[in-house]
Amino acid sequence: MDNLRILATNDDGILADGLQQLVEELSQIASVLVAAPDRERSATGHAITMFQPLRAKATEVPGAEAAYAISGTPADCVKLAVDMLFPKQIDLIVSGINRGANLGTDVLYSGTVSAALEGVMLGLPAIAFSLAEVAAPDFKPVASLARNLIETMWQKTWPADTLLNINVPQVSEDLKGIKVTTLGHIRYNNPILEREDPWGGTYYWLAGQVPENNHVEPSDVWAINNGYVSLTPIQFDLTDYRLLDTITSWKLQLPKNGGR
Amino acid sequence: MDNLRILATNDDGILADGLQQLVEELSQIASVLVAAPDRERSATGHAITMFQPLRAKATEVPGAEAAYAISGTPADCVKLAVDMLFPKQIDLIVSGINRGANLGTDVLYSGTVSAALEGVMLGLPAIAFSLAEVAAPDFKPVASLARNLIETMWQKTWPADTLLNINVPQVSEDLKGIKVTTLGHIRYNNPILEREDPWGGTYYWLAGQVPENNHVEPSDVWAINNGYVSLTPIQFDLTDYRLLDTITSWKLQLPKNGGR
Repeated sequence: MDNLRILATNDDGILADGLQQLVEELSQIASVLVAAPDRERSATGHAITMFQPLRAKATEVPGAEAAYAISGTPADCVKLAVDMLFPKQIDLIVSGINRGANLGTDVLYSGTVSAALEGVMLGLPAIAFSLAEVAAPDFKPVASLARNLIETMWQKTWPADTLLNINVPQVSEDLKGIKVTTLGHIRYNNPILEREDPWGGTYYWLAGQVPENNHVEPSDVWAINNGYVSLTPIQFDLTDYRLLDTITSWKLQLPKNGGR
Repeated sequence: MDNLRILATNDDGILADGLQQLVEELSQIASVLVAAPDRERSATGHAITMFQPLRAKATEVPGAEAAYAISGTPADCVKLAVDMLFPKQIDLIVSGINRGANLGTDVLYSGTVSAALEGVMLGLPAIAFSLAEVAAPDFKPVASLARNLIETMWQKTWPADTLLNINVPQVSEDLKGIKVTTLGHIRYNNPILEREDPWGGTYYWLAGQVPENNHVEPSDVWAINNGYVSLTPIQFDLTDYRLLDTITSWKLQLPKNGGR
């Protein structure tokens, strides 16, 4: 594994404990390069920065051979790292360890997962790690587990267009094992909070609770709720192949004026 | 169609010509409600706003029965509209008309597509329209075509968890017809531009050109390059089902210390 070169990134920002613990641990099995947002960029989804230039500030992260703090989104960081900062120097992208789970349909909102998915779109294998604990996350044992899993999985072969999305329950529980899962469909209860400002104006918070007990095996939400590490293979082709024949059978035509 | 209630949204902002033309045209066949970003939010992907409150300012859009300019992303707008501003008043979400194409893997970066996809995730049918022309877009004929297609497609049945992503070539060309397509994999040439500021600092632009002639039927990129309207069914489950058995066969185990 000594020749393995890993790009580490995240969406909680380059100073986040989850990234720093991950880099220190992975530096024991690989050369680690870092390109991460210069501040927290959670819930940015797959946003990219097209209308402002990006800056990349060289900095130090303990264990990393080189590190840049970047004024952009997680997807920006990976684009910049792969194509400009570390060209042809990356074997594997590892995103995380995120503070909080990235499960089910919520992965579409996740900067952590989007950074890894951007790597996969650029042709590099990628793994995302998230710790399903926000209040008092302890990243050190999760970083150790991440290293162990990477050491094992790097001996296997999987398609370069597949991302491995790994969530770990909070470490205060006994882990029951590792489940290979599918993405659950998360629908929030009470998704919007309405409040009034001191001047009588209305404002809203996106919030909501995840309903419990409506996820079943092999969903990733079920796995985490039941004390398992969840591993979901993820791909980036959103085409709904089930519908191609149906829609073709509609025989849609342009209006007679050709759409003018 | 008189009882049809459409939510119109976009990512170019509530003042964008593409949205305004769409609303005027659709108001002839439906009741139109609008919830759109208060400014341009292109390339925001599926970002949501979790760490700032959202404001919704009532405003007027010609043809709309009600309209709100929202201080958030396109996905925020749809969440707020469906769950708070217009609860149980929406039959169909129409996002667009975007200034510029939303094709292939680029749909992951697209606010236009993400708004529609958010609707689908909330259980509502949704259609996204984009005009593959940035410099001098003429939205009026595209809005007319959108109305015509919606009138036809609303008579059909398709799964509520499928989004219809429609791209239209620039209107200066003769349209050849409508193709049902898959999402192409877009890899940019020269994706990063490096420049120097007046003080000797380096900055970067995400840019790049889409290589021509490496897309073939039934890709959406091919369809647009060849003068067709492209219609791609899109779903939101990123699970890579092809890999579930392979990864399960790896029989991954927790390290003996349980990951601690």
